[in-house]
Amino acid sequence: MENIERKILVLSGKGGVGKSTIAVNFAFWLSLQGKKVGLLDIDIHGPSVPKLLNLDKEMIQGKNNKVEPVEYSDTLKVMSIGFMLPDDSSPVIWRGPMKHNLINQFIKDVNWGHLDYLVVDCPPGTGDEPLSIVQSINNIDGAIVVTTPQQISVIDVNKCISFCRQLNLPVLGIIENMSGFVCPTCKSKIEIFKGEGGQEICERFNVPFLGKIPLGCEVVSACDAGKPIVQFDKKSHIANALSAAFKPLLQTDKENEKEIEIK
Amino acid sequence: MENIERKILVLSGKGGVGKSTIAVNFAFWLSLQGKKVGLLDIDIHGPSVPKLLNLDKEMIQGKNNKVEPVEYSDTLKVMSIGFMLPDDSSPVIWRGPMKHNLINQFIKDVNWGHLDYLVVDCPPGTGDEPLSIVQSINNIDGAIVVTTPQQISVIDVNKCISFCRQLNLPVLGIIENMSGFVCPTCKSKIEIFKGEGGQEICERFNVPFLGKIPLGCEVVSACDAGKPIVQFDKKSHIANALSAAFKPLLQTDKENEKEIEIK
Repeated sequence: MENIERKILVLSGKGGVGKSTIAVNFAFWLSLQGKKVGLLDIDIHGPSVPKLLNLDKEMIQGKNNKVEPVEYSDTLKVMSIGFMLPDDSSPVIWRGPMKHNLINQFIKDVNWGHLDYLVVDCPPGTGDEPLSIVQSINNIDGAIVVTTPQQISVIDVNKCISFCRQLNLPVLGIIENMSGFVCPTCKSKIEIFKGEGGQEICERFNVPFLGKIPLGCEVVSACDAGKPIVQFDKKSHIANALSAAFKPLLQTDKENEKEIEIK
Repeated sequence: MENIERKILVLSGKGGVGKSTIAVNFAFWLSLQGKKVGLLDIDIHGPSVPKLLNLDKEMIQGKNNKVEPVEYSDTLKVMSIGFMLPDDSSPVIWRGPMKHNLINQFIKDVNWGHLDYLVVDCPPGTGDEPLSIVQSINNIDGAIVVTTPQQISVIDVNKCISFCRQLNLPVLGIIENMSGFVCPTCKSKIEIFKGEGGQEICERFNVPFLGKIPLGCEVVSACDAGKPIVQFDKKSHIANALSAAFKPLLQTDKENEKEIEIK
């Protein structure tokens, strides 16, 4: 871990808010900025990262007693339990202690090499997996917390922020996902998941608001195609909203400025 | 548990597919059919049932060394860790063994009384909580498995069906939620989460398909209002779709036919 400059978790109290989509896009976007990036998926029961990056046929390889991460590109390395399963319908019926051991191995036994950023995609909740990762990595820089706009999501995400506070994990900011939908036929804007959840959480806990990401069929198409939308449909309003949300998270090292235009 | 006739789990490999919404509506719908129903929420980190039934201010009460469930109506009793938390932003930062103990208590120490049905809302995944409930209750009648239409959801739900098979838990059927959206402005039908996930899973595993439930702003309004949509907007197309999906699950006891029309 000493070779990894910045370690950022992507968290949410609630499932299905698009946490893995945000994590994958954030990691890929960082790599577009010239950073060397690792993406670690610690969702043991429902690893989505391999499918979201069209790496679901990959299997891990060992070398010199270390496990090699799977390369999505020269600058983006990925690790997930998905690379260890015989097929995508095999469940991992494990209790907490086994999950804890695996997460430890993902940290200690994977040959990450030098990275500018390690992005960790956590499963929902405040249980074994996020606890294990916080206890296994020293000096985590903080967490991006993902919510959707409506009340039922805000409640779980409030719990997630309290979890971060109790574990002294800085909250880098809130992303409100699935925020508004533009009808592809009549172009009217519809608030399917009505609310102002993201901003509400930020005011309550005094944490930065990173932005609203609209819901759209393009995201689902990108997911099913196995590409981050910032790559798949980089001029879409969703890709733009994601890039704008990620920008404040980029540590700009003035002497070694590497920030480049999104290609 | 001997006083409980039928025990049904609501499962999903994936979070955010509307599992709790389905569980709450199923439990309430059963009570409308004249059944005595218990609804047990075993999502320890993100209990949604109290909010979905506007019971989030309730606290549990003890009586004769037993815990009394909270009554939503004369025929619907509810238990959730949400009734034990000081406020809705308090996280439960627990590892598996503590969750296992609590789930055991929900079974043994709650005064459920005689029930026709116990509906159990499980968190996503194939880890501690669903394992504990399957090991704590004998003779579970089966599981309703909830998915959404798109591929990224199907993968996790496939794992969930494999989990059921490995634990000899019958799959009563698949519900495909968030299936199509009708634009409230131009009335065109939009497949936001594109795919035929529900039917695909049913064909692959040879399990019954219970139906497709559309996505709609009404569901989110019902959730935020704290009422099941089959009660809140009972003539809506979503309430109708839910009722149609639930109907095959009702055990009709011919000698003691209690099935009544939805009021």
